[in-house]
Amino acid sequence: MAGRKTEKANSLKITKRDEDYSRWYLDIIERAKLAEDSGVRGCMIIRPEGYAIWEKIQQTLDKMFKETGHVNAYFPMLIPVSYFSKEAEHVSGFAKECAVVTHHRLKLTEDGTIGVDTEAELAEPLVVRPTSETIIWSAYKNWIQSYRDLPILVNQWANICRWELRTRPFLRTAEFLWQEGHTAHITYEEAEVEARQILQIYKTFVEDYLAVPVFDGLKTENEKFPGADHTYTIETMTQDRRAIQVGTSHHLGTTFSHAFDVKYLSAQGTLEYPFATSWGITTRLIGAMIMAHSDDQGFVCPPRVAPLQVVGIPIYKTDDDKQTVLSKFEELQQKFKLIDKFSFRVDARESLSPGFKFNDWELKGIPLRLEIGPKDLANGSCILARRDTGEKINVPLDQLEEKIPEILDFIQKSLFKKAQEFQRQHTYFVDTYDSFKNAIEQKPGFYVVYFAGAPEDEEKIKEETKATSRCIAFSLQDNSIGKCFYTGKETSQRVIFAKAY
Amino acid sequence: MAGRKTEKANSLKITKRDEDYSRWYLDIIERAKLAEDSGVRGCMIIRPEGYAIWEKIQQTLDKMFKETGHVNAYFPMLIPVSYFSKEAEHVSGFAKECAVVTHHRLKLTEDGTIGVDTEAELAEPLVVRPTSETIIWSAYKNWIQSYRDLPILVNQWANICRWELRTRPFLRTAEFLWQEGHTAHITYEEAEVEARQILQIYKTFVEDYLAVPVFDGLKTENEKFPGADHTYTIETMTQDRRAIQVGTSHHLGTTFSHAFDVKYLSAQGTLEYPFATSWGITTRLIGAMIMAHSDDQGFVCPPRVAPLQVVGIPIYKTDDDKQTVLSKFEELQQKFKLIDKFSFRVDARESLSPGFKFNDWELKGIPLRLEIGPKDLANGSCILARRDTGEKINVPLDQLEEKIPEILDFIQKSLFKKAQEFQRQHTYFVDTYDSFKNAIEQKPGFYVVYFAGAPEDEEKIKEETKATSRCIAFSLQDNSIGKCFYTGKETSQRVIFAKAY
Repeated sequence: MAGRKTEKANSLKITKRDEDYSRWYLDIIERAKLAEDSGVRGCMIIRPEGYAIWEKIQQTLDKMFKETGHVNAYFPMLIPVSYFSKEAEHVSGFAKECAVVTHHRLKLTEDGTIGVDTEAELAEPLVVRPTSETIIWSAYKNWIQSYRDLPILVNQWANICRWELRTRPFLRTAEFLWQEGHTAHITYEEAEVEARQILQIYKTFVEDYLAVPVFDGLKTENEKFPGADHTYTIETMTQDRRAIQVGTSHHLGTTFSHAFDVKYLSAQGTLEYPFATSWGITTRLIGAMIMAHSDDQGFVCPPRVAPLQVVGIPIYKTDDDKQTVLSKFEELQQKFKLIDKFSFRVDARESLSPGFKFNDWELKGIPLRLEIGPKDLANGSCILARRDTGEKINVPLDQLEEKIPEILDFIQKSLFKKAQEFQRQHTYFVDTYDSFKNAIEQKPGFYVVYFAGAPEDEEKIKEETKATSRCIAFSLQDNSIGKCFYTGKETSQRVIFAKAY
Repeated sequence: MAGRKTEKANSLKITKRDEDYSRWYLDIIERAKLAEDSGVRGCMIIRPEGYAIWEKIQQTLDKMFKETGHVNAYFPMLIPVSYFSKEAEHVSGFAKECAVVTHHRLKLTEDGTIGVDTEAELAEPLVVRPTSETIIWSAYKNWIQSYRDLPILVNQWANICRWELRTRPFLRTAEFLWQEGHTAHITYEEAEVEARQILQIYKTFVEDYLAVPVFDGLKTENEKFPGADHTYTIETMTQDRRAIQVGTSHHLGTTFSHAFDVKYLSAQGTLEYPFATSWGITTRLIGAMIMAHSDDQGFVCPPRVAPLQVVGIPIYKTDDDKQTVLSKFEELQQKFKLIDKFSFRVDARESLSPGFKFNDWELKGIPLRLEIGPKDLANGSCILARRDTGEKINVPLDQLEEKIPEILDFIQKSLFKKAQEFQRQHTYFVDTYDSFKNAIEQKPGFYVVYFAGAPEDEEKIKEETKATSRCIAFSLQDNSIGKCFYTGKETSQRVIFAKAY
């Protein structure tokens, strides 16, 4: 028993953010059991505690997609290499990092080893999808014959493979989970409305559910999706003040309808190429959320996506007290289940102290802790402890049903406000490249600049400062005119530059 | 317009079951737009109409799994070849048909072609998961240290790759979707309870939701899962009287805990190997369901998994009538949405005749059609037409809210009864191998026999008759003693043999 306690107590230690931010992030994920390394290069295991958050994300977004007329479908994961070669920009964007299936059989040798059966080589290699534009547009060729077949509003929940060199759980993994929408429209404008609508859904979801504040805007030419006409993005800031791209929505123009020769008969009897969008969010959202709210005590999970919202900790010393306290919890549990406004569980584990349990659930990021002991029962009250601030609130037992949803709602909003305030504090305005170069070294953050440079300029800026353009944020475009911080040209375009994950 | 109508009318033609059962099945899938060939060998595209059924299956089963204490997680899709070699039976069961990733980059040549970059070969090939026991048990080595860590009750929703030679949409595809449960337990008996509980969940779901009657039972040694102690299965019959395995639940004993050296410290302080189960259902369920209920007019979908349950068809000739009928539908739609007891949609497409629409929705298997015309309105009544029987029911307009759920429920039950009766009629009892050989050629079906043969005997039977043992069905074991139909040995074991998909 003692051995076990020590072991667990040790495992509670988390590197402080100030000491080593990257290590802190990995500690949080490991100790809160959100994910772990799999032994397969760059691939993580999403543990039940982490996957439950992904399920909340899926359920909520799926509902939002369906309410706006989208349906789900499923396309093959293995894509023939030749499909990729149909769109030049696209293939050069993804060819360098993909898993390629070349054989369809293993061979068992008599000495017990096992390897690829070289006689079972595929006629054409298959790529594990790094994104599905090519396979989906090859299908749309059959789906789209007439203007009556449009629009097509399809989404897919799937796994994706990109052979990243440097990986980090949730933020960048060789395999990840995502949703990818692929739509087809009669006009450029319709596709534009769709791409913008999805960006708005993403922003609403990420801010209202994950409590992660974002800048929404347009990517520069240099940073857009390979094959896109233009790309919209939402970007947030981590606690080490770097940027994370958390969702993108692309207007693809007619790139893929041309590449796959998809034409439809218009109402006027002419053959036309449809316009396309694609858009996606990934398990990276979980990483961004961990980075936004967690602290040196562990994970902090926003109530609206927390798999468990309230945990009850019984406090007692004598067996009599234990009976009384546990039966009160039993009664509350039934009541809470009936009203069904939040999720609740009692930690009735024996032989673990309340203090140990406090730490354990803090580490796991559960938003609210409900403590009840014999004295509380005598007073008809109890303690609600907030995970995010540590604040303890004394609440009459008979008011829990109203107070808990109120407090959860308050926590949700206050997490967002705190992160937003942090982002605001570390968003700077600079005029010249020199001041930018200095500043971004001294004070990492979002740098708002007037920028009218070309893709080559962005590449040079990246080389010299490791910063990239994140987005032409909608909220920053005010028609004011300034000098481009890099080229000196006059422009009204204001762009956020930052170092990114 | 005329051209379009003709085109659609032609596409309504479906091969009759009597003429060509296989072609009929493919026609149903194509015309009801459930799935289509992808151009990637053996891989299908699940179209929105088909995927919506999979979503119903997922939602319902996921709820049943969670109600029995299971949680979801996600493990990597790419499994190092060496993991497979740790369990001999398992590897030989899956090595012959798997997609192997050997490279991580493509190469673009200057002449515009694209191929594998031979310089980017992986140190160890990776197999696209054909099932996940190996990767999951390699993770469980870290998860399971103490008896307190048990049981582990984890499920995964994922895509799977098996390089099947002959494929058929839904029933057997190179890539398919499934769920796979992987549990770990302290005792053999606990694992047994789990494997049986899951089989019961599968049977309940398949019978109550898909209206597909099954025999539940044990697989013979010859047919069990590679690496399992024993395998439970549910088996159903198609309309061409062949067997389909629609779900399996395996007691894995300690095969995988031994293979991956997973040990835990017991309450008594000893090191022990945990017992395991694994269990799965796949998109094959949709194929089995199509085969069970559909007819020569098209797909028949059981109400409980139908993406759309009731379709409204307005009948009118004059513009005035159109106004009146459509506004009645509008009113009903709002009322139905409010009571939220079934899904409903009006087919208000212009310039298509009611007859055309009747055919179209019949083809798609929508359980109930609601017809309203001006005469109906005058009488205060309407017609409900059942997809399964064609029966037309006259119902007062003000009773629709009660009648529709009743009728849907009745259809659900009657589809099950019909399929069950069909299965009963084609389940035969034979005593000798000679009579079996003749009978199964003349009258395909389920053949119940006393059987005490060895795996070699089953292989011979398969060679000679193409029939395999499907299961030792629970409902057929009555302690009666008979002579094994193949070996002549006395036995109480009664087994179903049939030709399978």
